Amino acid sequence: MLSEAEIIGFLKQQFISSDERILGIGDDAAVLPLSSEQALVISKDILAENVHFRLNYFSPEALAHKALHSNFSDLAAMGVKPLFVMLGISIPPHLDAIWTKNFLAVFAKVCKENNVNLIGGDTTAAASELFLSITVFGFSPPKFIKYRSAAKVGDLICVTGNLGGAHLGLLALERKLDGFEYYKNKQLFPRARTAEGLFLGQYSSSLFPIHSMLDISDGLFIDLQRLCEASKVGAVLQVDKIPTDPDFEKTVQLLGIDPIQAKLGGGEDYELLFTVDAESFFDLQINFRQKFKSNIFSIGQIVKESGVYLEKDGQPLQLKVQIFEHF
Amino acid sequence: MLSEAEIIGFLKQQFISSDERILGIGDDAAVLPLSSEQALVISKDILAENVHFRLNYFSPEALAHKALHSNFSDLAAMGVKPLFVMLGISIPPHLDAIWTKNFLAVFAKVCKENNVNLIGGDTTAAASELFLSITVFGFSPPKFIKYRSAAKVGDLICVTGNLGGAHLGLLALERKLDGFEYYKNKQLFPRARTAEGLFLGQYSSSLFPIHSMLDISDGLFIDLQRLCEASKVGAVLQVDKIPTDPDFEKTVQLLGIDPIQAKLGGGEDYELLFTVDAESFFDLQINFRQKFKSNIFSIGQIVKESGVYLEKDGQPLQLKVQIFEHF
Repeated sequence: MLSEAEIIGFLKQQFISSDERILGIGDDAAVLPLSSEQALVISKDILAENVHFRLNYFSPEALAHKALHSNFSDLAAMGVKPLFVMLGISIPPHLDAIWTKNFLAVFAKVCKENNVNLIGGDTTAAASELFLSITVFGFSPPKFIKYRSAAKVGDLICVTGNLGGAHLGLLALERKLDGFEYYKNKQLFPRARTAEGLFLGQYSSSLFPIHSMLDISDGLFIDLQRLCEASKVGAVLQVDKIPTDPDFEKTVQLLGIDPIQAKLGGGEDYELLFTVDAESFFDLQINFRQKFKSNIFSIGQIVKESGVYLEKDGQPLQLKVQIFEHF
Repeated sequence: MLSEAEIIGFLKQQFISSDERILGIGDDAAVLPLSSEQALVISKDILAENVHFRLNYFSPEALAHKALHSNFSDLAAMGVKPLFVMLGISIPPHLDAIWTKNFLAVFAKVCKENNVNLIGGDTTAAASELFLSITVFGFSPPKFIKYRSAAKVGDLICVTGNLGGAHLGLLALERKLDGFEYYKNKQLFPRARTAEGLFLGQYSSSLFPIHSMLDISDGLFIDLQRLCEASKVGAVLQVDKIPTDPDFEKTVQLLGIDPIQAKLGGGEDYELLFTVDAESFFDLQINFRQKFKSNIFSIGQIVKESGVYLEKDGQPLQLKVQIFEHF
């Protein structure tokens, strides 16, 4: 089987430079400039049963919530807020009318909460597995749109919040453990950083801009690698600076897993990862805190040498990071 | 399980009138007016393995071709040509790298033939079944966009070409029959009526406009029913006027099926169904023939009384039309 990276590489070759307006293949969302003032930004995500979710612990409500927020997060990663959505859903025979109505009701509720309107889609049967494909649209002046490909050497690497929690929730759910409700909810009901993404995108027009951004959907290590590759730079990542929930250490002990692997490899927290001029970090932190009553965290620095280099307590850390492919 | 119509109905209720700009829920494509001069038109279709296609006779080449053309056809049905595409694909483990590359190569080739550019998408694994979700984008002045909801009493009901052929091909493929290559290709490699749709959309700005249009993807009878319901009208359909291929009658005999059921119920020909002022039909036919060296056919008339009424040789025909749900 071809990997996602191989597929994207193959398609990029096939479609090379046939239209210079096109940006965003390989980014979180596609960007279609409509004029010098306005671009359309589009995210399209697939959620496949038994690859991205299991129905034994994903209620229709959780699935509708997460399917939308994971797409909203792709737009937030570009500095854009969602306005319109198209719903693609293939429903297998084992899901009844009540399941479908519950899913659709929460789908509509989450859209309304976020001022997102449904403009169409496609609903079909599936032979045996549930399949979701959601397309989300937003508009933005091109100058506010952030890409993963614009990190600069010397930039500080920042995140908008605690990491690893959704992965702990996934483990608790997979192992059918009682308790761990906080972490289970992080896995089942993640929230996109929409307002924060919009703020960070527009902050880029200030004196010290934010250079690059993406959302951490697959895990900090792999997503930082992608940012570095797209930007043709490297990164030094200080693992002891990665923010986590207050009882994170206690919980990883309970679950018997390695805390560093969970911070680096655990995905689906949907926090934003961005890079910013080192000189402007503290100003940004103050502004961000005033606006959102929450913090941004500097966890490393962009370097010229390609690769992602781990450090712990100021010392190099040799570690093979596990990539958790959902299950 | 909820039907597609029930799902659309439920969603329409949930999202009712929250944005009056939004058109197209339940139409072939969504329409997003960007200005008084320009609208974005978006089609999103899902193709699910063992619901819409079987891999034992759908080669990767045929599947890529059909997935694109069925979406192009949705835009053609609105009078719009495709410009951009996003590819969503979930690939199960049993499909190897060669299969995927063949699929992607033809996907790229068909896009290029139609001057359509890839702007992004999502590629993931699937647990066991292949899923495709393609989103296609086009732009059009709002005045040229055709809806299914604007048919007027007295309009002639017209189609752009022969019907029922793709269904004969499907039967030959399902029954593993040798021969029937012409019809198999109609099923495997349908062509969207893109140029014709664009022409018909723009023709609507002339003195005698085309009022409503859709593409025949699920079968003439059910698609005409949808057009009538959306337009709050009815139709008289003359089954002996439905155009078919020269050896259609011979082929239905060979396959042992009812020709009228095949014409009315067989889908996936992707011909356009539209309604036009009775006075302007012949002018349109002449113009269409000059431009495309092919014909349009008048097969019935829009009436006030709701429902689709069949006639044969000028006499009412009582018939329960079979709806072929793919397999």
